[in-house]
Amino acid sequence: MPVTTGDRAVLDAARAVLLRDPRASMSAVAREARMGVGGLYRRYANKQELFRAVCDDNLRRYIALGEAALSDGEDPWAALGEFLGHVVDDGVHQLTPCLAGTVVVDDDLAALGEQANAVTDRILRAARGSGMMRPDVSRADLTLLVEQIGSLDLGSPERTAALRRRYLSLILDGLRAGAASRRLPGPPPEDDELSARWVI
Amino acid sequence: MPVTTGDRAVLDAARAVLLRDPRASMSAVAREARMGVGGLYRRYANKQELFRAVCDDNLRRYIALGEAALSDGEDPWAALGEFLGHVVDDGVHQLTPCLAGTVVVDDDLAALGEQANAVTDRILRAARGSGMMRPDVSRADLTLLVEQIGSLDLGSPERTAALRRRYLSLILDGLRAGAASRRLPGPPPEDDELSARWVI
Repeated sequence: MPVTTGDRAVLDAARAVLLRDPRASMSAVAREARMGVGGLYRRYANKQELFRAVCDDNLRRYIALGEAALSDGEDPWAALGEFLGHVVDDGVHQLTPCLAGTVVVDDDLAALGEQANAVTDRILRAARGSGMMRPDVSRADLTLLVEQIGSLDLGSPERTAALRRRYLSLILDGLRAGAASRRLPGPPPEDDELSARWVI
Repeated sequence: MPVTTGDRAVLDAARAVLLRDPRASMSAVAREARMGVGGLYRRYANKQELFRAVCDDNLRRYIALGEAALSDGEDPWAALGEFLGHVVDDGVHQLTPCLAGTVVVDDDLAALGEQANAVTDRILRAARGSGMMRPDVSRADLTLLVEQIGSLDLGSPERTAALRRRYLSLILDGLRAGAASRRLPGPPPEDDELSARWVI
């Protein structure tokens, strides 16, 4: 569904508010969007509907970041690093723990989720194919690693962003094939384990 | 202050409840400790007093884990890995984000905090001295890395524990001197940035 300018402003406001406070109310979103609560409810009948739209938007942002990384023509290992850097900066995976379990995953969202998985697989396959990446890391591992980085919150937003980049850099070093001192313990997470969080 | 058996049971209950829900109430703690709310209030006059005791206990657990790692006689790099593993398993740093800002840091807590720093420094200095560890990682970096791992929560407690160990293993690989592809970006976090979280 195309997003109008008005929708865009509301989605950006909802996104900003949720990134600061996962339990944010509709009135907090309306305040951030500089509109009345009534106006917000005319666009989205309830919190669930708004959160669904944020979720949809979030998946589209992720897919766009992935496609940009694939079309950059950089070497695949650098492309993976760039991609994860943008995902961390954008807060895409920081929203997952807020939104999971609050939104009904309908067919459209499920299709976007599959697109997101597909684009990640292409980036991951290329990075693995370059020989630079350790083989024992799954797609779901990447998701959880970026979520962990997204949990960090210290001082100002700028300092938080810089520290997240710092730990991404450390994790990328750990993801290199040459860094692997032994096989990572425990089975890697499966997609099913991640999607189970979305069951309401 | 010596901890009585009764205190121990209450502290363990409070710890378990807070690890599940950082916003837990006194009555949730009383339920977990299988005691009446009145009984809990006779021990701790208010939530702040109970949280202070949890904080004190948490720092003592951390110091004990650190001292055990130092006395193990293992090689210093393995000792660092073992220590962080126990810290992750115990949830020590998972409690920090819940407790920071809710407890007044009195002189006794501050002294325990300094002891915790001192024991970490000894472990860190030894690991650096072994040549196995990259030099551009600070004590506060370790704290924040373990906190990030502690944010992970997926499926059962057992699965969560296994996945936390998985990501600690990856991060330890990234912490090796040989893994460093470049200096980590951004200045490392300072102790002051971490202690600022405790200002009420």
